[in-house]
Amino acid sequence: MTPESLRFVSKKSGLAPGTLVHVGAVHEHPHSIRVINYNRHTLENRTIDSIEELLPYKTTDSVTWVMIDGLKEVDNIDAIGQHFDIHPLVLEDILNTHQRTKFEEYTDYLYFVLKVVSLGKGAFNIQYEQISILVLKNFVFTFMEKPDGLFKPILNRLANEDSHLRNAGSDYLAYMIMDAVVDEYFTLQDLFDEQIEVIEDELLTHPSVATLSMIQKIRRELIFLRKTVSPLRELLAAIRRSESALFDERTKRYFIDIYDHSIRIIEAVESYRELISGMMDIYLSSVSNKLNETMKFLTVFSSIFIPMTFIAGVYGMNFEYMPELKWQWSYPTLWAVFISIAISLLFYFKKKKWL
Amino acid sequence: MTPESLRFVSKKSGLAPGTLVHVGAVHEHPHSIRVINYNRHTLENRTIDSIEELLPYKTTDSVTWVMIDGLKEVDNIDAIGQHFDIHPLVLEDILNTHQRTKFEEYTDYLYFVLKVVSLGKGAFNIQYEQISILVLKNFVFTFMEKPDGLFKPILNRLANEDSHLRNAGSDYLAYMIMDAVVDEYFTLQDLFDEQIEVIEDELLTHPSVATLSMIQKIRRELIFLRKTVSPLRELLAAIRRSESALFDERTKRYFIDIYDHSIRIIEAVESYRELISGMMDIYLSSVSNKLNETMKFLTVFSSIFIPMTFIAGVYGMNFEYMPELKWQWSYPTLWAVFISIAISLLFYFKKKKWL
Amino acid sequence: MTPESLRFVSKKSGLAPGTLVHVGAVHEHPHSIRVINYNRHTLENRTIDSIEELLPYKTTDSVTWVMIDGLKEVDNIDAIGQHFDIHPLVLEDILNTHQRTKFEEYTDYLYFVLKVVSLGKGAFNIQYEQISILVLKNFVFTFMEKPDGLFKPILNRLANEDSHLRNAGSDYLAYMIMDAVVDEYFTLQDLFDEQIEVIEDELLTHPSVATLSMIQKIRRELIFLRKTVSPLRELLAAIRRSESALFDERTKRYFIDIYDHSIRIIEAVESYRELISGMMDIYLSSVSNKLNETMKFLTVFSSIFIPMTFIAGVYGMNFEYMPELKWQWSYPTLWAVFISIAISLLFYFKKKKWL
Amino acid sequence: MTPESLRFVSKKSGLAPGTLVHVGAVHEHPHSIRVINYNRHTLENRTIDSIEELLPYKTTDSVTWVMIDGLKEVDNIDAIGQHFDIHPLVLEDILNTHQRTKFEEYTDYLYFVLKVVSLGKGAFNIQYEQISILVLKNFVFTFMEKPDGLFKPILNRLANEDSHLRNAGSDYLAYMIMDAVVDEYFTLQDLFDEQIEVIEDELLTHPSVATLSMIQKIRRELIFLRKTVSPLRELLAAIRRSESALFDERTKRYFIDIYDHSIRIIEAVESYRELISGMMDIYLSSVSNKLNETMKFLTVFSSIFIPMTFIAGVYGMNFEYMPELKWQWSYPTLWAVFISIAISLLFYFKKKKWL
Amino acid sequence: MTPESLRFVSKKSGLAPGTLVHVGAVHEHPHSIRVINYNRHTLENRTIDSIEELLPYKTTDSVTWVMIDGLKEVDNIDAIGQHFDIHPLVLEDILNTHQRTKFEEYTDYLYFVLKVVSLGKGAFNIQYEQISILVLKNFVFTFMEKPDGLFKPILNRLANEDSHLRNAGSDYLAYMIMDAVVDEYFTLQDLFDEQIEVIEDELLTHPSVATLSMIQKIRRELIFLRKTVSPLRELLAAIRRSESALFDERTKRYFIDIYDHSIRIIEAVESYRELISGMMDIYLSSVSNKLNETMKFLTVFSSIFIPMTFIAGVYGMNFEYMPELKWQWSYPTLWAVFISIAISLLFYFKKKKWL
Repeated sequence: MTPESLRFVSKKSGLAPGTLVHVGAVHEHPHSIRVINYNRHTLENRTIDSIEELLPYKTTDSVTWVMIDGLKEVDNIDAIGQHFDIHPLVLEDILNTHQRTKFEEYTDYLYFVLKVVSLGKGAFNIQYEQISILVLKNFVFTFMEKPDGLFKPILNRLANEDSHLRNAGSDYLAYMIMDAVVDEYFTLQDLFDEQIEVIEDELLTHPSVATLSMIQKIRRELIFLRKTVSPLRELLAAIRRSESALFDERTKRYFIDIYDHSIRIIEAVESYRELISGMMDIYLSSVSNKLNETMKFLTVFSSIFIPMTFIAGVYGMNFEYMPELKWQWSYPTLWAVFISIAISLLFYFKKKKWL
Repeated sequence: MTPESLRFVSKKSGLAPGTLVHVGAVHEHPHSIRVINYNRHTLENRTIDSIEELLPYKTTDSVTWVMIDGLKEVDNIDAIGQHFDIHPLVLEDILNTHQRTKFEEYTDYLYFVLKVVSLGKGAFNIQYEQISILVLKNFVFTFMEKPDGLFKPILNRLANEDSHLRNAGSDYLAYMIMDAVVDEYFTLQDLFDEQIEVIEDELLTHPSVATLSMIQKIRRELIFLRKTVSPLRELLAAIRRSESALFDERTKRYFIDIYDHSIRIIEAVESYRELISGMMDIYLSSVSNKLNETMKFLTVFSSIFIPMTFIAGVYGMNFEYMPELKWQWSYPTLWAVFISIAISLLFYFKKKKWL
Repeated sequence: MTPESLRFVSKKSGLAPGTLVHVGAVHEHPHSIRVINYNRHTLENRTIDSIEELLPYKTTDSVTWVMIDGLKEVDNIDAIGQHFDIHPLVLEDILNTHQRTKFEEYTDYLYFVLKVVSLGKGAFNIQYEQISILVLKNFVFTFMEKPDGLFKPILNRLANEDSHLRNAGSDYLAYMIMDAVVDEYFTLQDLFDEQIEVIEDELLTHPSVATLSMIQKIRRELIFLRKTVSPLRELLAAIRRSESALFDERTKRYFIDIYDHSIRIIEAVESYRELISGMMDIYLSSVSNKLNETMKFLTVFSSIFIPMTFIAGVYGMNFEYMPELKWQWSYPTLWAVFISIAISLLFYFKKKKWL
Repeated sequence: MTPESLRFVSKKSGLAPGTLVHVGAVHEHPHSIRVINYNRHTLENRTIDSIEELLPYKTTDSVTWVMIDGLKEVDNIDAIGQHFDIHPLVLEDILNTHQRTKFEEYTDYLYFVLKVVSLGKGAFNIQYEQISILVLKNFVFTFMEKPDGLFKPILNRLANEDSHLRNAGSDYLAYMIMDAVVDEYFTLQDLFDEQIEVIEDELLTHPSVATLSMIQKIRRELIFLRKTVSPLRELLAAIRRSESALFDERTKRYFIDIYDHSIRIIEAVESYRELISGMMDIYLSSVSNKLNETMKFLTVFSSIFIPMTFIAGVYGMNFEYMPELKWQWSYPTLWAVFISIAISLLFYFKKKKWL
Repeated sequence: MTPESLRFVSKKSGLAPGTLVHVGAVHEHPHSIRVINYNRHTLENRTIDSIEELLPYKTTDSVTWVMIDGLKEVDNIDAIGQHFDIHPLVLEDILNTHQRTKFEEYTDYLYFVLKVVSLGKGAFNIQYEQISILVLKNFVFTFMEKPDGLFKPILNRLANEDSHLRNAGSDYLAYMIMDAVVDEYFTLQDLFDEQIEVIEDELLTHPSVATLSMIQKIRRELIFLRKTVSPLRELLAAIRRSESALFDERTKRYFIDIYDHSIRIIEAVESYRELISGMMDIYLSSVSNKLNETMKFLTVFSSIFIPMTFIAGVYGMNFEYMPELKWQWSYPTLWAVFISIAISLLFYFKKKKWL
C-alpha cells in the first residue's frame, strides 16, 4: 500500500559515487532525442540519434532545446557530460529519479530537478515523474522517463514567430518549462477539493471504514505532495538571489511569478492537511455517536419490555392464594396496564430526546 | 461544501504567460470606470468610457484615482498596461482574482493585491473579493469585480477640503484604501465571537451533530481567513523596508499603524483556532458523557427488574413440593420483597451517583 | 461567555484615521489629572484641571510625571498632542483601549502600551486594563481608564529623597512603572496554580461536566494571557536595541531585568498550557473509565441472574413427563444450585478484577 | 500537587528594585563561607566568618574560590556587592532562587545562574537547587542554599598539583563547576528510563488510574526539566560568542563540550515527551479495549441464554392444545436442543474471535 | 524495553574532564589497527600493533587511512593524541560511544562523529554503532567498536589505480566514508515501508493489542532515528561554510551531494512520523468500531427475543379467565406471531444497516 513515491530505492547504496546507473522505475517507452533549435527567424524541430549531432549547435547563437525521453540509454547522458562538461554528480542525479526537487548553480550551467504530476487512471491515482533541466548559455536539456503532453503549449508558442519566447534566451525557455510544471499542480487541487467534499458528506451522513481508509489515503498523498512542493519555495528564493550570468534580470521577474504560484500551492496543501485532521476528529465523533444511538435503541427497547415481562412473570406464579387470578377482568385489565406502561415509557424517552 | 475560496481555478494552466484572460467568478454587475481627480483646491468626480480619457491627467500635479469595477472588459486593462507601462505579469494578476495577498515594487509603480471581506446574506456567510491597487506617482488605480460601499468614508473625506488626504500624495490615498480594507476584518470578529459563544453554550447543554458540523464550518472559515490575513504581516514589513520614492517617509508611519492592526487580527484568528480545537475535545467528551448516561439508565432499569423477574420465575416453577406455594401470606409477602428490593437498589444507585 | 478582551470593537472601522474617539469600555470613574514633579531636592504632587497648567514644567530640569485617569475627556489628549507635539496616530492609540502590548520610538518621545492585570471579585475573574506611557525628555505621561493601586510603591519610593529614582531621569521612572506592571503578572500564577491543583484533584476522584467547563475556562484565560504577555519579549528586545537618546545606557540594564521576568512569565504560561492539554486527555480517559465501570456493573449483575432465570424457566414448563417435578428434594436442591451458580460467577468476576 | 518549582513566589512584587530580600524556600541548614585559594604551588582551604577576610586575596595572582552556603545572611551578599563592585540587580538575583538559567556579562565579571538537580527520597522525587556563580579575574563565588556533594570531584582534582585546574584561571574553575552541574542531569535519565519502562509494561498488561496519574506526573516533571535545561543551549551559545577578557580562548573549547552535553539532554527530554504523548494514546486505547472486552462478555453470555429462556417460556404457556406437552420425549429432547443451541452459539462466537 | 540507544550512561559523571575512560557497551570483538597507505602509484594495506609504527608515514605525501576497531585499548587513543597533537576532549569523545552526530573543526584536523546503522537479527532490530573520523592533512583515522562490512566498497575502489579516490586527498576519503555511512540509512527505509504496510493492513482488517504495541515500537525507533539523522543537516551545512584548508573546494561539492541525501532521509523520517500518528487515530477508531459492532449484535439479538419472551410470559400466566388459552389454534397462531415478529425486526435492522 506504500506509494512507490515514498520508497527510496537503495539499489545504489554501496556503489562508488560517479558510477552512472539508472535508479528508478523502468518504463517500456521508446527512447528518443528531439532537438528544437530556434531564434527570432528560424525554427528547426527534428529527432536525432546520437548526442554528437548536437555539436554543430554549440557555435550558433540560437537557442537549442534537447528533449531526452527515456533514461535507459546511459551512454547518451555520458556523452552529454563529456561534450558539455557537466559534473559527474549532476549526471548521476539525472539518472536517479528519486531526487528531491532542487536547484544547483554551476559556473557554466544551471541544474533543476522538478516533479511533474499527472492523474493516472482509477480513483485518486496521482503520478509523479521526475524532470531534470540543464540550462546552458544557448542550450536547454530536459530529461524525462516518459514523453509527456506537458510541452505542447510551449511548442505552440514556439511556432508563433512574434512570441516573446522566440526572442528570448535559454533562461526564458527554462522559465516556461518550469511554469508548465508548476501549473500542473493546480489540477490536483480540483481533485482534492472533490474528494474532500465527498468525504465531508459521507462523514455527516454515513461514515464507514471506507471513509476512514479514504481519509488516510488522502493524508498519505498530501504528505507526499507537500514533500514535493515545499522545496519549491526555497528553490525559487535561490533563483531570486542567484547572481548567475545565465539569468537575465528581466526573466527573474517571471520566476518570481512562479514563486507566488508555489506559495499558493503550498498554502493549499497546508489547508487540506488541517481539514483532513479535522475530519479525523469528526469521524471519531461519528463513531461514538453511532454507538450512542445503538445503545439508546437497546435501552429503549429493553426498558419497555423489562417491567412488562416481570408482571407477566408475577401472574405466572403458582401460589394458591393469589386473589387476582380468580377475578374475571384481571386479564383485560392487565393488557391495559401493559399498554399504559409502554406508552408512558415511550413518552418519557421522547422527552429525554432518545427517540 | 468546499468554499469557493479554497478552489484554485485551473482554467489558465497550459496557457502561455502574458495572455490576458479573466480568471475568477464572473458577476453580472455592470462595468464602470470612475475618475476622481483632486488636489488641495479642486475635486473632480466623473465616469469615463475609455482609458484614453485618462491621458490628460498624466501631465497634471493633482492625484487621480481611477476605480475600475468589473474585470470582464479585458481591453481596458490592456490599455492601462500600454499607456502607463505596466508589466504584463501585473496585468495578468489583476485579472486573476485567485491571487494571494501581496505587494510588488516596480520602478515606477507599486502593486498591491488585497482581499476585501464582507458578510453575505444567510448564516455565517463570509465573502471575499479581490482588490488590486496600482500606485503611480500621481495615479491610484483600484480594480474590483463588484462595486462596494467600502470607499464611501474615503469619498467623504475627499469632500472635505481641509483633510490631510487632499493635501497628500497618491501613497496616502493608497494607505487610506488599505486601512479601509483591513478595518473590515474587525467586523468578522464580532461574527466569530457570536458564533463561538453560541456553540460553547450548545456544547455544555445539548451537543448535536449540527454543533459538530458548525465547528467544522468555523474551522474551515478560519483556515481561509488565516490564509488571507497572514501574508499581511510580511506585506507590511516589506512596505516598511521599501526604499521606493513613491513612499513619503511620513506616510510610512501610517502603514505601520495598519501593521499593528494586522497583527491584532492575525492573533485573534490564532486564538479562535485554539478555542475551536478545545471545543472539538469538549464535543468528544460530551458524546462520551451522553453514552455513559444512556448506559447508566439501562443499567439501573435492568438491575432493578432482573432479580425480581428471577424470583417471579422461581415461584412459577411446577415442583410438587414447594411449601411456599401453599402458604396463605406468600403472595403479599413476595410483593413486600419486590418493593424492598427495588427500594434498596434505588438507594444503592443513588449512593453511586448514578441517579 | 466570550471575555471582553477577545472582542475587537469595530466601532471605529470606517472612520478616517486621526479622528480622536474613545474606543473601549466606558467606566464611570471620575476623570482626573495628577502631576508629580521631582528632582533630587524637591517633590511636588498636585491635581490640575487643564493641560495648559503643565506648560511651565517644560522649561525646568526636574522630571514631571502626569497621571491621567479616565479617557473620556478627549480634549485633554488633544491638548497634550498639540503642546508636546505627539503624532496623531499615537493619540488615537491612547484612546483605543484594545491595543496590543507595544513599544514605538519617535524622535522626541517613546510610546509604550501595556496591559495591567488584576483580580476581580468572584472566582477566576482576571481583569485587564490598558496603560499607555509616553516618555519625553523630562516628562512621563501615563494614561489609564481607572485609577489603580499599582503606583503606590513608586510613590513611596519618590517620597524617599535618597532613592535612585529621585536622582534619575524619566527613563528610570518609565522602568519603574513597567516593572510594577510586569510584577503584577506573577500574582496570576498563584491563581493558576491553585485552580490547576483543584482540577487535578477533581479529575482523579470525581470528574464532572463542571470540571470540563473549568478546564475550558482556564484554557481561554491562558490564550488571552499569552496574547498579552508574549509581545513583551519582542518589546523588551526592541528597547535593548534602541539607540534613542532618551534611554540612559545604565537604565537599559534594568530593562533587561524586566526582560528576564517576562521570559519567566511566558514560560510559565506555556507550561500551564501543556498541563491543561494533558488534563483534557485525562478527562477523556476518566469518562471512558466510568463508562467501563457502569458496563462492568451491568455485566456482573445480568450475568448472575441470566442463567438462574433460565433454570427457573425450565422448571416452569408444563411437560407431562418431567421426572424432577415429582421428586421431593428438587426444590431445595435447585436453591443450592442457584446459590452455587451465583457464588462461582462472583468468584470468576473477582478473578477477572471486575469487582 | 503543583511542584514547588512551578510556583513563582510573588512575595517581592511591589517592592522597589534593588531591595535585597531572600526569595525562595528557607532551609534550616547552617550558613557558611568556605574559601579555597590555589595556584600551581599552593592550596589553601579554610572557613571564614566575614566577607572582609577576602580582601587580602584581591591583590594576589592565585585563584580564590568562595563557596557561600545559605542565603539567609543577606549582609554577606551586600558586602560582596560593595567590595567587588557587583551590580545591585545581580545581588538581587542571587537572593531570589526562582531565577531562570541564565548568563550575564558585565565588564569586570560574569554571572551564571544554574539549577542543580538531585534525587530526593521517595519515588520519583526530583529536586532543583539554584546555584549562582560569579566569575571575576581571580575570584569565583558560588552561592547555594544548601551544601551539596556536587563539588567533591572538583576538590579532589584541586588536591592534585599536576592537574590542569591548578594551572588554569578562574574561567576554567567556572567550567568545571558548570560541567559538574550539567553532568548531574544525566542521572535523571536513568530515572526516566526506568519509570517509562515500568509504565509501558503496565500499559500493555493492566493499565489503571494509577498508570494515568503516573503518566501525568512524568509529563509535569518533563515540563519543568525542559524549562530548566532548554535555556542552556542559548546560554552556552552566548558564552561561545562572548568577547569578554575573562574567557581564555582555550577554555571556551571546553564550554563547547558542555554545549554538546546540553544538546544531548535537551534532545533526550524531547524524546521522553514524545514517548509520553504516545503512552497517553495507548492508555486511551487500552481503556477502550477493556470496555470492548466487557461488552463481549455480556454479549456472549446474554446471547446464549436469551433464546433458551424464550423456549422455556414457550413451554411454560398454559394453552390447552399444545401437543408437545403430552409427548413423552419432549423434555429430554428440549435439553438436547438447549445444549445444541449453546454449543453452536459458542462456535459462532469462537469464529467471530469474541472468545 | 527502553532501547539501549535512549540511555545515557552516567558512568562518567563526576569524573574530571580529560580522563580517558571508555563509555559505552563493551563488545568482545578483538582489537585491531589496520593501516592503508596509498597514492596514485602505490597501495599498502597492513595490520600494525602499536601507534608508533605510524610515525614514518607523517613525512610522506601519500594518504594514510588508519582503521581502529575496538575502543578498549585506551592506550592507543592516548598515543594518537600525543603523536598527532589531538585535543584531550576529542580523545574523550572518541571513547564515549554515546556522542551526538557532530562535526568539529580544529586548526590541523577535523573531527566527525557519525552513527552507522545496521539491521540485527530478529524482527525490527535496528542497531547503531558510533564511528569517529579524524581527518588530518595526509591521515584519516576511523574509530569503531566492531569491525564492519561498511568499508568494503571503498577498499574495492582503492584497489583500482584509476579511481578518483587514489588521486585525491584525505578529504575525499572522508567524503567516501561519510557517503557510505549515510547510504546505509536508505536500507532502513525498506524496513519501515514494509512494517508500515503490514500494520496498515492489520489496522483495517483485524487490529489487536499487538498492532498497538508495534505502532509504539516504530514510533520509538523513529524518535531515535530522527535524533540520529537530524543533526546531519546542520553538520553538512557547517562543512559547506567551513574555510578549513583541509577541504579542497572541489571535494565540498561532493559533501553537498551527501547533504541532499540527508535531507531526503530526514524528510522520509518526518513522513513516517506523520503516517504513524495517523495510524494511531485509525487504531482508536477501529477499537470504537469494533465496540459498536459488538453492541449492535447484542442489540439485534436481544431485541428479537425480548418481545417474544414477553408474549410467552403472558400466556404462562395463571388467570382463570384467559379465553385464548382454550382456543384450539392459539398455539400455532402464536408461533406464526413469533416468526413474523422476528422477521419484521430483522428487516428493520437490515434497513438500519445494523446487519
